[in-house]
Amino acid sequence: MNDRPLILVTNDDGIFAPGIRALVEEVSAFGQVMVVAPDKPQSAMGHAITIHSFLRLKKVAYLDGLDAWSCSGTPVDCVKLAIYKLLEGRKPDLLVSGINHGANISINVLYSGTMSAAVEGAMEGIPSVGFSLMDHSMEADFDPVRPVVRRVLANVLQHGLAVGSCLNVNVPRTRGEALRGMRVCRQARANWNDAFETRLDPGGHEYYWLKGEFNNGDHGEDTDVWAVNNGFVSIVPTQFDMTAHHAIAELNTWEHGLE
Amino acid sequence: MNDRPLILVTNDDGIFAPGIRALVEEVSAFGQVMVVAPDKPQSAMGHAITIHSFLRLKKVAYLDGLDAWSCSGTPVDCVKLAIYKLLEGRKPDLLVSGINHGANISINVLYSGTMSAAVEGAMEGIPSVGFSLMDHSMEADFDPVRPVVRRVLANVLQHGLAVGSCLNVNVPRTRGEALRGMRVCRQARANWNDAFETRLDPGGHEYYWLKGEFNNGDHGEDTDVWAVNNGFVSIVPTQFDMTAHHAIAELNTWEHGLE
Repeated sequence: MNDRPLILVTNDDGIFAPGIRALVEEVSAFGQVMVVAPDKPQSAMGHAITIHSFLRLKKVAYLDGLDAWSCSGTPVDCVKLAIYKLLEGRKPDLLVSGINHGANISINVLYSGTMSAAVEGAMEGIPSVGFSLMDHSMEADFDPVRPVVRRVLANVLQHGLAVGSCLNVNVPRTRGEALRGMRVCRQARANWNDAFETRLDPGGHEYYWLKGEFNNGDHGEDTDVWAVNNGFVSIVPTQFDMTAHHAIAELNTWEHGLE
Repeated sequence: MNDRPLILVTNDDGIFAPGIRALVEEVSAFGQVMVVAPDKPQSAMGHAITIHSFLRLKKVAYLDGLDAWSCSGTPVDCVKLAIYKLLEGRKPDLLVSGINHGANISINVLYSGTMSAAVEGAMEGIPSVGFSLMDHSMEADFDPVRPVVRRVLANVLQHGLAVGSCLNVNVPRTRGEALRGMRVCRQARANWNDAFETRLDPGGHEYYWLKGEFNNGDHGEDTDVWAVNNGFVSIVPTQFDMTAHHAIAELNTWEHGLE
């Protein structure tokens, strides 16, 4: 036992992805690190949990003597197993998820396993942050993200986070230029123009691959999309209360009688 | 072609669950119905989508000549395939999801495949409603839900829904008593006290089953949990903007400089 903060690290690209390794290296300066992350890529798993099957955990040799486990389930399963199985109900002092290979801006927060793990942390009352780099490549350069991780974690440990919220931090791909700074943003109102590529299997039966095109129709300069497209790191405070509170008054004017 | 509203029906319990059948029977009075639902149970899949594998669709004989398809993917995959593959980009006039076998109150909106399909509908700008009955049984009695479906859909078709929102409708199990009415609610701030049951496989290796206990510490009488526990149907307007707008001002007081 020691008195340093206990920091749980997870991701959705899998425990052996370069992004989580960079994150572990940076957060180790802030406390005692425990890694529980998927044993395979679990991108776009959203807030899925495993209830129709069982879960496995496997102790993994990871950096130098670090407490690290791979998990057969989703990112949210990882968070639940870390807290309720491995830590026997003890809550970590901090949860960090990422660094994701690819952006999690705008509505992608809902599809993202990386951010769903952070949202699960918020549900558990743990200060939680998801980090993403706007670069899907496995050879992505995570070095520009490192000072961002240090600054954000120092802030979170100093100030805490509003009850029921976590942070969604997205870092643009810099291609050598310096980041222009950090911006606190709201989630842009964008959408996906989806498409499916149809193929035929050897038996002549159709199958489909999802291909989408991200389409931002939100021209606000206070959005995460604007920030990353203009060289800034975006920070969006993100909550798990999905109630459209502004719609309640209108709904109360409806006729609700049942026959 | 006809001029009746086109209504897309999906769920997360699978296309052959009794709940979706009851829903299809009720919504058929309101328009032309198209069913695209998972070919197997996809509960607790949240907003997951399939990007590491392909998807299949299969035409299904379902009620009388209804346009119905089973899908190999998640509930959100079903919505995307319906719109962007089967309807070639035409948006349905209404999307309904359910009737779920089991409640989707409070934070369960995030884990729920049923509600994630409705949220996906909202992202597409389609008036969308998820219906759930607080009874997991495959022999559950869906008859008390039918007048709720009729009333809610009549309202949605008459009034529309606020941009960016859908409805989360939960019906308590009545055990023969009449429903006390419908209440517009907010999502309760509850949590899961999770636990894992550890078992040993024949080879002596541990595996884990998730077991959780729902724990409502929110005593507001304006919550969905209060409503269903007191014999009312809960209606929560639900949005996909997860920004914690109230936290932005505080975050802007932080020191955000990068080294």
